[in-house]
Amino acid sequence: MLKLRRKRKIKQSDYKRLTPPGAAPGTLVKAPDATMTTVRKLAWGGTSPLAEGELEDLNEIQQLFEKHLVSWIDVRGLGDLKKLRQLGDICKLHKLSLEDVVSADQRPKVEEYENYLFLVIRMLESTDTTLAIDQLSMFIFKDHIVTFQSTENDCLEPVRARIRKGKNRIRNAGADYLAYAVIDAVIDAYFPVLEEYGQKIENLEARVLENPESSLIAEIHELKRDLIVLRRNIWPIRETLNNLIRDRHPFITDETQIHLRDCYDHALRIIDMIESYRQTCKDLMDLYLSLVSNKMNEVMKVLTVISTIFIPPTFIAGVYGMNFNTEVSKWNMPELNSALGYPLCLGAMAAIALSVIAFLYSRGWLRSS
Amino acid sequence: MLKLRRKRKIKQSDYKRLTPPGAAPGTLVKAPDATMTTVRKLAWGGTSPLAEGELEDLNEIQQLFEKHLVSWIDVRGLGDLKKLRQLGDICKLHKLSLEDVVSADQRPKVEEYENYLFLVIRMLESTDTTLAIDQLSMFIFKDHIVTFQSTENDCLEPVRARIRKGKNRIRNAGADYLAYAVIDAVIDAYFPVLEEYGQKIENLEARVLENPESSLIAEIHELKRDLIVLRRNIWPIRETLNNLIRDRHPFITDETQIHLRDCYDHALRIIDMIESYRQTCKDLMDLYLSLVSNKMNEVMKVLTVISTIFIPPTFIAGVYGMNFNTEVSKWNMPELNSALGYPLCLGAMAAIALSVIAFLYSRGWLRSS
Amino acid sequence: MLKLRRKRKIKQSDYKRLTPPGAAPGTLVKAPDATMTTVRKLAWGGTSPLAEGELEDLNEIQQLFEKHLVSWIDVRGLGDLKKLRQLGDICKLHKLSLEDVVSADQRPKVEEYENYLFLVIRMLESTDTTLAIDQLSMFIFKDHIVTFQSTENDCLEPVRARIRKGKNRIRNAGADYLAYAVIDAVIDAYFPVLEEYGQKIENLEARVLENPESSLIAEIHELKRDLIVLRRNIWPIRETLNNLIRDRHPFITDETQIHLRDCYDHALRIIDMIESYRQTCKDLMDLYLSLVSNKMNEVMKVLTVISTIFIPPTFIAGVYGMNFNTEVSKWNMPELNSALGYPLCLGAMAAIALSVIAFLYSRGWLRSS
Amino acid sequence: MLKLRRKRKIKQSDYKRLTPPGAAPGTLVKAPDATMTTVRKLAWGGTSPLAEGELEDLNEIQQLFEKHLVSWIDVRGLGDLKKLRQLGDICKLHKLSLEDVVSADQRPKVEEYENYLFLVIRMLESTDTTLAIDQLSMFIFKDHIVTFQSTENDCLEPVRARIRKGKNRIRNAGADYLAYAVIDAVIDAYFPVLEEYGQKIENLEARVLENPESSLIAEIHELKRDLIVLRRNIWPIRETLNNLIRDRHPFITDETQIHLRDCYDHALRIIDMIESYRQTCKDLMDLYLSLVSNKMNEVMKVLTVISTIFIPPTFIAGVYGMNFNTEVSKWNMPELNSALGYPLCLGAMAAIALSVIAFLYSRGWLRSS
Amino acid sequence: MLKLRRKRKIKQSDYKRLTPPGAAPGTLVKAPDATMTTVRKLAWGGTSPLAEGELEDLNEIQQLFEKHLVSWIDVRGLGDLKKLRQLGDICKLHKLSLEDVVSADQRPKVEEYENYLFLVIRMLESTDTTLAIDQLSMFIFKDHIVTFQSTENDCLEPVRARIRKGKNRIRNAGADYLAYAVIDAVIDAYFPVLEEYGQKIENLEARVLENPESSLIAEIHELKRDLIVLRRNIWPIRETLNNLIRDRHPFITDETQIHLRDCYDHALRIIDMIESYRQTCKDLMDLYLSLVSNKMNEVMKVLTVISTIFIPPTFIAGVYGMNFNTEVSKWNMPELNSALGYPLCLGAMAAIALSVIAFLYSRGWLRSS
Repeated sequence: MLKLRRKRKIKQSDYKRLTPPGAAPGTLVKAPDATMTTVRKLAWGGTSPLAEGELEDLNEIQQLFEKHLVSWIDVRGLGDLKKLRQLGDICKLHKLSLEDVVSADQRPKVEEYENYLFLVIRMLESTDTTLAIDQLSMFIFKDHIVTFQSTENDCLEPVRARIRKGKNRIRNAGADYLAYAVIDAVIDAYFPVLEEYGQKIENLEARVLENPESSLIAEIHELKRDLIVLRRNIWPIRETLNNLIRDRHPFITDETQIHLRDCYDHALRIIDMIESYRQTCKDLMDLYLSLVSNKMNEVMKVLTVISTIFIPPTFIAGVYGMNFNTEVSKWNMPELNSALGYPLCLGAMAAIALSVIAFLYSRGWLRSS
Repeated sequence: MLKLRRKRKIKQSDYKRLTPPGAAPGTLVKAPDATMTTVRKLAWGGTSPLAEGELEDLNEIQQLFEKHLVSWIDVRGLGDLKKLRQLGDICKLHKLSLEDVVSADQRPKVEEYENYLFLVIRMLESTDTTLAIDQLSMFIFKDHIVTFQSTENDCLEPVRARIRKGKNRIRNAGADYLAYAVIDAVIDAYFPVLEEYGQKIENLEARVLENPESSLIAEIHELKRDLIVLRRNIWPIRETLNNLIRDRHPFITDETQIHLRDCYDHALRIIDMIESYRQTCKDLMDLYLSLVSNKMNEVMKVLTVISTIFIPPTFIAGVYGMNFNTEVSKWNMPELNSALGYPLCLGAMAAIALSVIAFLYSRGWLRSS
Repeated sequence: MLKLRRKRKIKQSDYKRLTPPGAAPGTLVKAPDATMTTVRKLAWGGTSPLAEGELEDLNEIQQLFEKHLVSWIDVRGLGDLKKLRQLGDICKLHKLSLEDVVSADQRPKVEEYENYLFLVIRMLESTDTTLAIDQLSMFIFKDHIVTFQSTENDCLEPVRARIRKGKNRIRNAGADYLAYAVIDAVIDAYFPVLEEYGQKIENLEARVLENPESSLIAEIHELKRDLIVLRRNIWPIRETLNNLIRDRHPFITDETQIHLRDCYDHALRIIDMIESYRQTCKDLMDLYLSLVSNKMNEVMKVLTVISTIFIPPTFIAGVYGMNFNTEVSKWNMPELNSALGYPLCLGAMAAIALSVIAFLYSRGWLRSS
Repeated sequence: MLKLRRKRKIKQSDYKRLTPPGAAPGTLVKAPDATMTTVRKLAWGGTSPLAEGELEDLNEIQQLFEKHLVSWIDVRGLGDLKKLRQLGDICKLHKLSLEDVVSADQRPKVEEYENYLFLVIRMLESTDTTLAIDQLSMFIFKDHIVTFQSTENDCLEPVRARIRKGKNRIRNAGADYLAYAVIDAVIDAYFPVLEEYGQKIENLEARVLENPESSLIAEIHELKRDLIVLRRNIWPIRETLNNLIRDRHPFITDETQIHLRDCYDHALRIIDMIESYRQTCKDLMDLYLSLVSNKMNEVMKVLTVISTIFIPPTFIAGVYGMNFNTEVSKWNMPELNSALGYPLCLGAMAAIALSVIAFLYSRGWLRSS
Repeated sequence: MLKLRRKRKIKQSDYKRLTPPGAAPGTLVKAPDATMTTVRKLAWGGTSPLAEGELEDLNEIQQLFEKHLVSWIDVRGLGDLKKLRQLGDICKLHKLSLEDVVSADQRPKVEEYENYLFLVIRMLESTDTTLAIDQLSMFIFKDHIVTFQSTENDCLEPVRARIRKGKNRIRNAGADYLAYAVIDAVIDAYFPVLEEYGQKIENLEARVLENPESSLIAEIHELKRDLIVLRRNIWPIRETLNNLIRDRHPFITDETQIHLRDCYDHALRIIDMIESYRQTCKDLMDLYLSLVSNKMNEVMKVLTVISTIFIPPTFIAGVYGMNFNTEVSKWNMPELNSALGYPLCLGAMAAIALSVIAFLYSRGWLRSS
């Protein structure tokens, strides 16, 4: 299990700034690991059929907006700065927003611009072997949205599937509902990951209680770190959604507002879960330390019991093993020549050992605890 | 006692999401352990007598509402999605609310819809051997309420008994008062459970002080976990009730408002209790660690006292147990042949032991602490 | 001192609910240890002289209110539910308030009703041997107050004495000033108790620094528990007074308002004291643990010093105490027959012991720390 | 250094109430250590020259106010209750304020009365050997201020010097500026004391890292206590100044307002410093414990290394020191009579010791850490 | 790595007040390490070309302001109080602000004056060998800014480079945009330093897990201290920027407002990073302590295992090494003359040792953990 966990360690660039300090605002800098940029379209409503596929020529976009009621421009990979700048110009995105998109190091936030809402959230990309956190930047216009993400795979596939299926709510609602569906999918993707963490914690708890072995500390520590990272990413989402709900924007309909409130509840639940996992991890570390402390006590008690029982008789045996010449004077070890010397000596040893045992018993050190 | 406690460990699905991430909002998913759905009615007021019993045909509901002043539709078991959807249509419940009801993983909250208030709280179901937390979802309409819970047994029986008895406040008041009575019963059910935890803590405290044995750590830890779970369930109830009181809704009369304020006070008291229990558990862990640390110190002192007293004389005995040939030269162990060798040797041993004892006494290690 | 403290351990029913969960609101349940109810009057102003004494017939009350400008109905013992209900009817107290009075498990709070303010605070009843926390429930009407408490002795005697003395502010002011005087007396009664705790902490601190003996842990722990209980009782009083001051009520004059502000300051000071005592207790536990840890280090060092000095020479002595037959071959212990065997052997022992001492000295273990 | 620090231990009466609980509000009680009261005047502006000196007759005050534009009545020592009451009457101070002045146990606060602002702050009186906290009570009127303090020496001397020098801002501004100057001097007096604490902490840090000896714990603990006391005194000053700035009072001019904002910044800085010192002290305790824990580990390792190397060979030596009669049978210790018995025995001992050493080396216990 | 870190230890005067307590407000005191003051100009816009260079005569300033649209007066070194006072007079800076500039010990803040905004932030000056925190004081006027810093080198060089380059946003925008650019550069300079700390923490984490050696504690402790210092400097910047954004000032255009919001997000991210680093450092210390505790347990177990196995047989060997005279009586050590004495004795020893080993095995102490 440990191995799996290590493999799935959260990869996160830890808010690493790409733009050098003091650069002009709006400067776009390509991340060293940025992948090629592909732009996909997904548009429906109006008289035209559902349009889906890669957009080779960005100038199609304007036409797309005109022909459909709702469009979703879905950009993956942030490596082609020229293309991104062109897209920014076509969609009239603010230079600062575009910088935030490209540097991909933003805190979740929502900002209101003249024509659009700019929303940043961080999404979990969970595969069997990796668990990465990626930035999802979304521009919400009146009748279309533009999303940006740095990798190909994401957690939005179910949303796209619902759109393709047709004849459901998402096909009949506006861009605001689409934006909600994306946010909802991103937030819901945290649940299975957190449930996995919950199971890891229960598993660790059982193992700590059974045998507090040294390797567990590192595992608990790693878990704590992962939770710190998750918390830092999720915490501002709560605030972001709260802002979105509180400061009602003309684009957002009443019905979508109700759905966003639901999203907000989910975010609160995720935060509740992370907070109690963190608390449990802390308690687990305390539990571990207490158990180790107790075990050490146990070890010390065994050593002390054995030592205190045997050290005094061993001393006596040492005394009568001395080679003083009994023939020189009657003061030299007369016991050795006494008829009952040996039995008396053994008796003395036994008496001492028994009184030590009685003392230890009275202290409760001979009872197993 | 421990056994009982283990048996009564809190079972909670830990906000486990049923709906897969990205599913359309309002998708109902049956929980794997969902039980059959039964719908009960309880209606009174108007010219008809008190109506109680299972509702076989959901279409009776509309008629029920018309014939009585106040009705309570009481749904138990969330396994029959078809029935639930039908009920949702009849009572005009929002799809999202219905999803929250079925997934039964909601944070306590209150939401205002056009025709009703939707309230989620979590209720303790305590029997002799189990202690489970279930979601109670309640829709408060102008003249009826609809409640949903996942199991048959609950803590609302006293409320129903009061309704059956007739001729009391609850029979003369409206649906808002009924809703209050339900909330009150749910919150009050926390008190006996928390009092039980209070007694467990006192019990543990006494046992830790008497003998800090190793099994206690696991018990304290389990208590801490249970309190974290309880806290996570109770904490948002406070907020929920506060919202209910602050944002006065037309359905809620002034008199019920006063009663809800009382409920809110009870929730605050429960939170106070949980917070101080958590603090006490933390202090208990510290106490345990201090006592173990102290016991170890004690053990070490006994070992050190015995060792330091006997090790030097044992060395001397060893020296005079050596077999150097005294006849070869006068340098070889002349003491052995000296007339007072043995008494002087014993004297030296005693002198060393006594000076060690004096040293230990001066350090205060021979006084019991 | 410990004994005294144990005797004075805080007794508190820990918000124990009397009414069973789900009971109708306003149900009065007699506490198992409730004492007989006596109702006292204290009224002045108007043309009649000061009226004081037990009220045998509750119907006198109405007359009392009419004849005097200010009246104080002072109820002690909550055992006679019939009498309390009768009093509630005469004074027109809300059923819910009366339930709060009788169950005596309320969080401090202030509630506004149509004709009166209902205030609950918790008062310390400190005698030489006990320290209990009791609930004081007070109904503040325009020209009279009604107070309820569960026992005979309280901390309000000085207020009554001031009333009896006559010709002072309290005799000339209204019921609002009387209510203030009662609150002030209750809050001020916390000061001497907290000062006692302050002295206990200083005393403990001195004893921990002098000799961190095991019994001190239990004392610190008990102190921490008492402070948690006190805190839980005092903390909501702050909020309660703040509400009373902020939401100005027509009964409360400007002058009384100033006095209540003073009360509020006192409550803040009490909270400050409790918080810093709690912090100090926590620091004290850390101090204790550090000192024990240090002592253990000291003990271990002595054991290690003695052992490492004597174990190697003892081994050498053991070697030359072996009985190999030197006559069989020249390889068998030739040292025994060497002329300088013994002195060289002793020299070797001394050399080893000295080099160990030098090593230990270089590590600084021979210096006392 | 320790000695000096002990001498300078903060003396504070810890909010000790003088007035007995339940006493009438406004009751003045003389503190047991109260010193004689002297009243000084300092007045300027108008046609009269600067007036300074002790006020023998309090009735001069009215005249003083009339003749000068700004006056400062400076009362030191709170022992003469009669004089204080007389002063209170002349200056029309509220009875409750006067009680707060005399009991000298107030939390810093500002209260608005009809004619004046009543301000309480706590000032540090630092001499070479003592460090005490005293209450400074100030009544700010339109054209004069009245200050009260319990001792002769204070930190306001520089303000008085500036007034005497004449021809500067303070001589040309009003009473509000004078009040600001006093507050500023009181707050600035915290800086050198806190810088001293900062140096103590750095000093302690260096000593802990060099040699974590036992006496340091007590020093860290004392520092922590002092910081708790300082924090409790400074923290409410922030709130007090904030209230003073927010609730603009007609006496306070715009210019003084700017100066008060500066004062508020200083208070924030002091709180920042105390908070980070407290954090550092906590870290220091952790550092200490880690180092002691490490040292103990080191000690245990030496003991274990020596013991495990020598115990097995010593046992072998003991075996061949036994006196079984080899002549009785060939089973009795034939090794003793074997020609190579001794060298083989020594070899066995060496082999065992070396394998133990190899084992310990593989565990890394022979490398110094 | 440690050495480098030591060299780069954060130097900070820890808010050391220069002005003595009680000094008149506005008193300028020269810091002991203050360097010579140089005043530079950087002005553009209008008909004149870009003006850059040192300002020899401060009277040129007025002319500079008239000839250019935007000017930046850039003062470095705070040693020449006369020059600073003259500059203050020319630019009409408030005396209190100037005191704040010179004492260079301010908390980050923004203050609104009649003609200008006064902003204080603290900037990191990072070179290869040092890491210092300096105060940047900035006066923002309608068409010029004045900045003060205590040293020559700063993190604003990229901003100046952008100005020199010409034909970009900064050359076409007003003084408010210039101020934003300066703030942005200061805040962005924290990122590389924090990333360095992040790497240090990861490095330390790996080393602690590999071998928890004693020197690491001091490193973790130093890291914690540095983070406390950084936090104290960054935390109020958040508040400052928030104030700047919330209280919209006429100078600040809408566009700059958007840019400042971006700055504010960066400050939040820095605080997030510091908070999680602090948490990780705390966890690291716990990890260290757990590992040391575990190691000690391991050491103790080895000692106990060896001791308990060998102490009892050694005692038996001691017994049969005693020299009681077997010829005196048949009670004296008859075993010595028994034919199977020796093998039985060895067998007994082996039996005891094996049963001890079995006992230890059953406790799990022989398995490596």
